[in-house]
Amino acid sequence: MRIIGLDPGLQHTGWGIIDQDGSRLSFVAAGRISSVASRPLAERLVEIHAGLNVVLDEHQPDTAAVEETFVNKNPTSTLKLGLARGVVLLTPALHKLEVFEYPANLIKKSVVGAGHAGKEQVQMMVRVILPASNAGSPDAADALAVAICHAHHMGTLNRWGAKDFREAAR
Amino acid sequence: MRIIGLDPGLQHTGWGIIDQDGSRLSFVAAGRISSVASRPLAERLVEIHAGLNVVLDEHQPDTAAVEETFVNKNPTSTLKLGLARGVVLLTPALHKLEVFEYPANLIKKSVVGAGHAGKEQVQMMVRVILPASNAGSPDAADALAVAICHAHHMGTLNRWGAKDFREAAR
Repeated sequence: MRIIGLDPGLQHTGWGIIDQDGSRLSFVAAGRISSVASRPLAERLVEIHAGLNVVLDEHQPDTAAVEETFVNKNPTSTLKLGLARGVVLLTPALHKLEVFEYPANLIKKSVVGAGHAGKEQVQMMVRVILPASNAGSPDAADALAVAICHAHHMGTLNRWGAKDFREAAR
Repeated sequence: MRIIGLDPGLQHTGWGIIDQDGSRLSFVAAGRISSVASRPLAERLVEIHAGLNVVLDEHQPDTAAVEETFVNKNPTSTLKLGLARGVVLLTPALHKLEVFEYPANLIKKSVVGAGHAGKEQVQMMVRVILPASNAGSPDAADALAVAICHAHHMGTLNRWGAKDFREAAR
């Protein structure tokens, strides 16, 4: 089973791909897609979409997971993140992948063992779990953390027929 | 010049198309695209994207305009609106249209003459400006208002080489 994890952002969208074979996880590839801040908004979203298309075509994952957005105190930031996230949810779905969502604290807990771990701890544990990863950017490491979380929890969500834990709780 | 105006929403996205010939505006078509609330988020965004593709293919507009999002006091609503808006900005850009943005008060001012007009006033004036429209839903009427605003202001933005008035002010 090949998993893509995605960490959306208008400026940088991280992506990370792992293979799951039973309980064994192995690193495939990771990186980030950046959009040029000076370009019109719609064209920045096209950059993210086009970049993700290349990654999905090249690595052909079987399933996708996206971090549930942290609702920022700054509404303008929340809105910008929402724009990128809309494109990051849409694009794998257009490739006929099911797209799952996980809250940030479950992702941290899956990787570090604690829901309130710092960013550096998450990135360090990603390197421990996936020694080959050596993820260049924090965005790529965060995306690999989402993929690791999905590897741990997709079985549960699939049994419940849900795409996220809010849906499972309904 | 054929203009599409768009009023994004996760539940209902309004669209309205007009033709501009000098200062004469005429109604072409309008409607709304709805997504099924019980479906997974990514699939709802696919519904909006696919619905917009049909409208764009059928009516072949030359330019697009989207209402700048009202940043809601409720951050969860702001985020949901952001998701839909990301897809609504992306889709016409994938059809090689330039996508412009206008703030809500400029749209109201263009249609009613006052920036703080109520929704009903906007809808009534859309029927006056485009007698053939008889827009079925408020979402469609709001989208036609965006298109009317774009007809009035795109000349100015084009002279400035900008896609919105924030960009023009930089």
